[in-house]
Amino acid sequence: MRAELIAIGSELLLFGRPDTNGDWIARRLAERGVDVRRRTIVGDDEHEIAEAIRRARARATLLIITGGLGPTVDDVTREALARSLDAPLVTDARVREDLLARIRARGYKVLASADRQARYPQGCELVRNPVGSAPGLLHRGPPCWTLVLPGVPGEMRAMFEDAAAHLDVLPAGAAPAARFLVGGLPESEVDDRVSDLIGASGRARVTILAAEGGVELHVLGTGGDREAARVEVARIAAEIRARLGDAVGAAGDETLAAVVVRTLVERGRTLAVAESCTGGLLGGAVTSVPGSSAAFLGGFIVYANAMKVAELGLDPAMLEREGAVSEPVARAMAEGARTRAGADWALSVTGIAGPDGGSESKPVGLVWIAAASASGTRARRLLLGGDRAAIRARSVSAALELLRRALKEEGP
Amino acid sequence: MRAELIAIGSELLLFGRPDTNGDWIARRLAERGVDVRRRTIVGDDEHEIAEAIRRARARATLLIITGGLGPTVDDVTREALARSLDAPLVTDARVREDLLARIRARGYKVLASADRQARYPQGCELVRNPVGSAPGLLHRGPPCWTLVLPGVPGEMRAMFEDAAAHLDVLPAGAAPAARFLVGGLPESEVDDRVSDLIGASGRARVTILAAEGGVELHVLGTGGDREAARVEVARIAAEIRARLGDAVGAAGDETLAAVVVRTLVERGRTLAVAESCTGGLLGGAVTSVPGSSAAFLGGFIVYANAMKVAELGLDPAMLEREGAVSEPVARAMAEGARTRAGADWALSVTGIAGPDGGSESKPVGLVWIAAASASGTRARRLLLGGDRAAIRARSVSAALELLRRALKEEGP
Repeated sequence: MRAELIAIGSELLLFGRPDTNGDWIARRLAERGVDVRRRTIVGDDEHEIAEAIRRARARATLLIITGGLGPTVDDVTREALARSLDAPLVTDARVREDLLARIRARGYKVLASADRQARYPQGCELVRNPVGSAPGLLHRGPPCWTLVLPGVPGEMRAMFEDAAAHLDVLPAGAAPAARFLVGGLPESEVDDRVSDLIGASGRARVTILAAEGGVELHVLGTGGDREAARVEVARIAAEIRARLGDAVGAAGDETLAAVVVRTLVERGRTLAVAESCTGGLLGGAVTSVPGSSAAFLGGFIVYANAMKVAELGLDPAMLEREGAVSEPVARAMAEGARTRAGADWALSVTGIAGPDGGSESKPVGLVWIAAASASGTRARRLLLGGDRAAIRARSVSAALELLRRALKEEGP
Repeated sequence: MRAELIAIGSELLLFGRPDTNGDWIARRLAERGVDVRRRTIVGDDEHEIAEAIRRARARATLLIITGGLGPTVDDVTREALARSLDAPLVTDARVREDLLARIRARGYKVLASADRQARYPQGCELVRNPVGSAPGLLHRGPPCWTLVLPGVPGEMRAMFEDAAAHLDVLPAGAAPAARFLVGGLPESEVDDRVSDLIGASGRARVTILAAEGGVELHVLGTGGDREAARVEVARIAAEIRARLGDAVGAAGDETLAAVVVRTLVERGRTLAVAESCTGGLLGGAVTSVPGSSAAFLGGFIVYANAMKVAELGLDPAMLEREGAVSEPVARAMAEGARTRAGADWALSVTGIAGPDGGSESKPVGLVWIAAASASGTRARRLLLGGDRAAIRARSVSAALELLRRALKEEGP
């Protein structure tokens, strides 16, 4: 099994726009235990695309192509695939009528160019697009199964699972896997504790990756015997949990925010936030979790010092004396938000995200976070690297990790 | 001139992790007027890398490779490049001493494997790495200039400009360019108004791209005569401004949030926000702009209805009658935030981001936004597509666009 991806579209090569379709498909394949071995991005050039497809088909057993199926003259994936298959383009009258009816039903003008979308290389099957006009294309293997999907992310995603069911080469269902997000330990420390587990055996592979909010450990079952792989993944996962203990912040598909929200909901506790340098991103992270309204009440973005005083009841003299980025202010923000919102827990963030505003004693990257509950308030000082965006993102992760640990220590 | 990028690293193929190095380099090249024509991502396999390099060098005049220069056995880019150049690997004793000294100076253990990093394909030059241990590699053209940089983003970025100066094939300095973010008009409407400008002449190229928050138009000067290209870019940019007028939300490097912040600061006006479904992301977007504290006071994340009443003074009976996602609530949230924060302007967002919580009359994707000032409150109803994350992101963009237009209509 060897999978490759080709993304087509000059717009993907301009200005460094990311190929999010390829990222998404690679994740879906990884869930089934399939590694992508090569990804290629090419522009809207028929010869270039045809060459890339021909070479990929010579190497791979599964090729998934995205983009270039639209109605304009720039969309030449159909022609390029036909060329690489040495097959003529044909039109199916029924497909054409169906397509034009769908375009009309959406209230779009039927352009002369829409006809192009009803053409396909002989030997391919059309794959129905439930949300857009361009059908996908499937060429059955062996040796190489080839699937072409539209480049519009919403259409590609809506079609993927249905289309994947036609790919006999693709293992059905998810491969046994485990994932751990380890917060609050440096990568070298995580590596030290689990280094003998890293790597591949015949039945599982363990990978360590730097990630937002910590270090990720992935365990993926491999090989044809899924039951043996499942047992091996479970054994390694238990070993990782034993060695890392409390440092494991999230596991499986859960994000750190989801772990915190789930724990709060399970215990019937509520949360509020108070944010300065993150400007709302902590609340944004908490509410990225569907159903977070069962625990999250809301919060206070107190960017200006006057808001810290007016909304959270901070003492102006203390604020003046200690400065907005200080332990007492972080504590008072969390306690003020907890009281004002009537929440069981409150989290606060205050820091210097840069690029300006740093000083020798309070450099850019200095951040104080605090978590308040009925049992008291705990604060933590961070000194974060990176640019403004990275410092703010890391502040959010650190605040969520502080709450996760506090909830853990508090117990159910 | 034909540029290609190759990113090396199995970790880039696992779990759909994005190749951010390639995105970054493509942007740097675009600024100089150079198009990337193909991007390839391959794993840590010497033969696979060598094949990809050989083919890219046969097509391109500039090839930039990232990754695989570390000290471990997985790092085989040196070997692969040597193989593709049919050149032996050699070691320079002085380079080796310098490298080991640098590793020791950083307090790292000198592993036996560190020796690997002093080896390079004969015919290449080493490129100094100011922030890490792995030197880069340069093979001079013509026909193909080849530059290899480390995969660690901080090291790659720190080396890029210095290394690029050695690439005689690369135009020095920025190409003339213009960029417009068009909000509040569908892509088809923007296309209709400027379709005759889209495409490439000998001196400039105009591209239309769907983007977060609207449609982007890029104008890039091309060809050898930079002065002629500059004149042409200015002419096209003026034409775009004339045809799109107020619909141009941001231009140049500015984001929509930056335009709004700049306008507020120029007029000495302040802003507050009130957020329900976006949970803080609107405040997060405003405060992504460095210096936003000169205009942004803060805001209220009123996720629970009780917070809407307690913090923003909403009438509980009205909230009950109209529902949290309604025009009156959006208006009252904006007006309440404006009053509470003592701000000149306030923006509000309330909506159903899903996946649950929708009904027939109020489906997932229904969002009300409002902007309040001394001169009144304007509200807008949105019906947004996409998943929870997309609906929230589009709500933020729409709210910023509403404020931008309101500021424009209000005049200086």
